Amino acid sequence: MRAPTEGQTVDLPAITADVLARLRARAPRVHCITNTVAQAFTANMLLAAGAIPSMTIAADEVGAFVARADALLVNLGTFDAERRAAVDAAIAAAGERVPWVLDPVFIDRAPARAAYARTLVAKAPRAIRLNAAEFGALAGPGEAAPADYAREHGLVVGLTGATDLVTDGSRHAGIANGHRLMGKVTAMGCAASALVAACLAVEPDAWRATVAGLLAFGVAGEVAAERARGPGSLAVEIIDALHDLDRATLLKRGRAA
Amino acid sequence: MRAPTEGQTVDLPAITADVLARLRARAPRVHCITNTVAQAFTANMLLAAGAIPSMTIAADEVGAFVARADALLVNLGTFDAERRAAVDAAIAAAGERVPWVLDPVFIDRAPARAAYARTLVAKAPRAIRLNAAEFGALAGPGEAAPADYAREHGLVVGLTGATDLVTDGSRHAGIANGHRLMGKVTAMGCAASALVAACLAVEPDAWRATVAGLLAFGVAGEVAAERARGPGSLAVEIIDALHDLDRATLLKRGRAA
Amino acid sequence: MRAPTEGQTVDLPAITADVLARLRARAPRVHCITNTVAQAFTANMLLAAGAIPSMTIAADEVGAFVARADALLVNLGTFDAERRAAVDAAIAAAGERVPWVLDPVFIDRAPARAAYARTLVAKAPRAIRLNAAEFGALAGPGEAAPADYAREHGLVVGLTGATDLVTDGSRHAGIANGHRLMGKVTAMGCAASALVAACLAVEPDAWRATVAGLLAFGVAGEVAAERARGPGSLAVEIIDALHDLDRATLLKRGRAA
Repeated sequence: MRAPTEGQTVDLPAITADVLARLRARAPRVHCITNTVAQAFTANMLLAAGAIPSMTIAADEVGAFVARADALLVNLGTFDAERRAAVDAAIAAAGERVPWVLDPVFIDRAPARAAYARTLVAKAPRAIRLNAAEFGALAGPGEAAPADYAREHGLVVGLTGATDLVTDGSRHAGIANGHRLMGKVTAMGCAASALVAACLAVEPDAWRATVAGLLAFGVAGEVAAERARGPGSLAVEIIDALHDLDRATLLKRGRAA
Repeated sequence: MRAPTEGQTVDLPAITADVLARLRARAPRVHCITNTVAQAFTANMLLAAGAIPSMTIAADEVGAFVARADALLVNLGTFDAERRAAVDAAIAAAGERVPWVLDPVFIDRAPARAAYARTLVAKAPRAIRLNAAEFGALAGPGEAAPADYAREHGLVVGLTGATDLVTDGSRHAGIANGHRLMGKVTAMGCAASALVAACLAVEPDAWRATVAGLLAFGVAGEVAAERARGPGSLAVEIIDALHDLDRATLLKRGRAA
Repeated sequence: MRAPTEGQTVDLPAITADVLARLRARAPRVHCITNTVAQAFTANMLLAAGAIPSMTIAADEVGAFVARADALLVNLGTFDAERRAAVDAAIAAAGERVPWVLDPVFIDRAPARAAYARTLVAKAPRAIRLNAAEFGALAGPGEAAPADYAREHGLVVGLTGATDLVTDGSRHAGIANGHRLMGKVTAMGCAASALVAACLAVEPDAWRATVAGLLAFGVAGEVAAERARGPGSLAVEIIDALHDLDRATLLKRGRAA
């Protein structure tokens, strides 16, 4: 349950329970510029966690939405021209006040998308959530390890896989929750990133927020997998599980790796 | 079960059962210009109710779709430029023949969207479905009550909340169905608006059509909430419940307020 | 279980089981240019079957995605301008190497869409999946039967309905699987077309691939209908059923017509 960090230990499941309690109490608004495949599932995950999602990408109104939001998600899946224009307006509106998360979906598939993601990293997201292939495309050949990348760019890297790694360069957490069936449901990573954004709305320490989002998501996935018959029912059960997720379940199931 | 209206009483659940029976018998086509978050859920709700949805927003074909449709929904969520162009073509194609419903999603979040919604009200929708915050943004500060707004603009206002209000300025219905868990599922309001549009396709009295759509939706939500474990399963169960909804259930559960 | 073809008989369920086994072993990438209503359901069906979906429509990256893909789906639902530009880039990137499937959704509703579909047929899809109304709009008045159309255009026609017909002009299969409740769930046809594309990625004979996709989909739908309470749960159950679909079930339930 404990991960070493700067000479002390922290209780990751307890952090998660605290952040989740705040999330439900404050019901923060999370604006999501995210792909059309993931939108409905992401919105339902955010609602189940206690947040209020909005998802417009119209350039003339996205600024107003972000100005009234508590966190922002920028996800690069199905990235069309209008979405791209929306990102500039959204990040400008976010400024220093609204923390944002970058999810560079599938940047390992298209060089243009990877190049674009790098320009966004320069605009100071608080956290990046991605998988190993995407990290490789972002960091480039011969590049730094996640911890070095995080330190250099001044952000938190949430690298998800069989075990999730969360690092800000000095603190490192491993999270061993989740279930292999989650890889058979679309938008799982996208929804995890959205949950990290929601946690950032109520937890100023981006490392703790990212730990909380990924650990809560992983535990909800495990609970759901026990009830599901396959990937179709898993997608339903994980929303129910996140909605019901309590401190006792987090403390019992949360696994630092 | 009864709501006073113009000196007489009407049986709201019976009206709903009649409209729903016609909907299933006629299988009207409902064209929806709606947000990408809500599209799949809205299409499945319409199919479950007995209608045939279509959802294109391409400016060069939306007119052809509306010309072959029996009702139209205009929903302002995730409102991008192409959607906006589609609305003009769609309303022009609707003309006098095809009744349409406006759902001004989240106009309380962006002044530009609220201003746009007001231009659409001037184009004569038969009904508007919205929540209290959205009504406030539409009507403006110091503006009329829903009944006055409805009378002034010659349309039906369906104001949803813990209790739904349906008014055309002279007739007023309160509907006390629904379940709090419905607020934890995305696109519930959007789907309710689509159901109102479907009812308008088979019921020329817009007040009755709006009552029918909102009451059927609320009762389906209640039935679903009894079977659901959380918001994920609620979203599945409400589609099954609407598909199975019968007159006996409507008469037993429908609650005028 | 057997359909006559060129003087011999073939075992359609056995073909399907073989193709499905290869699909799971190879996990092909399937790029889908498909409508926003169908995207999430289609992605989940492909993942359940063993394929890896991607769905971007951005013109500057769709070529890179298709170049790394094993099959391509072009679906004309909700067909906006950016989607249309993406199709040209995608088909050019597909070239001879990447087989593609056309799903001309609702071309019976808009003449412009039907005309556009005909220009795509000239670009050599390996298969077309559509219903009777859509085939009528594609082939035009007084046009050829599906077998003649398939022969003339050098492609496979998968004409779905109560019984599915799969023909390349010389070989003809009838498939009597499926369930009427599938018609009450949005994007079922779209997902079937995506499954045909996934099968094309691992089966070079387009007739066999189309048979496999439609038969597997139909059997999964039947299994799901036995477990479902209505169209909402059917949409969940069919994903679970496809994920679990095994050779024994295919051989037992597959019905040549």
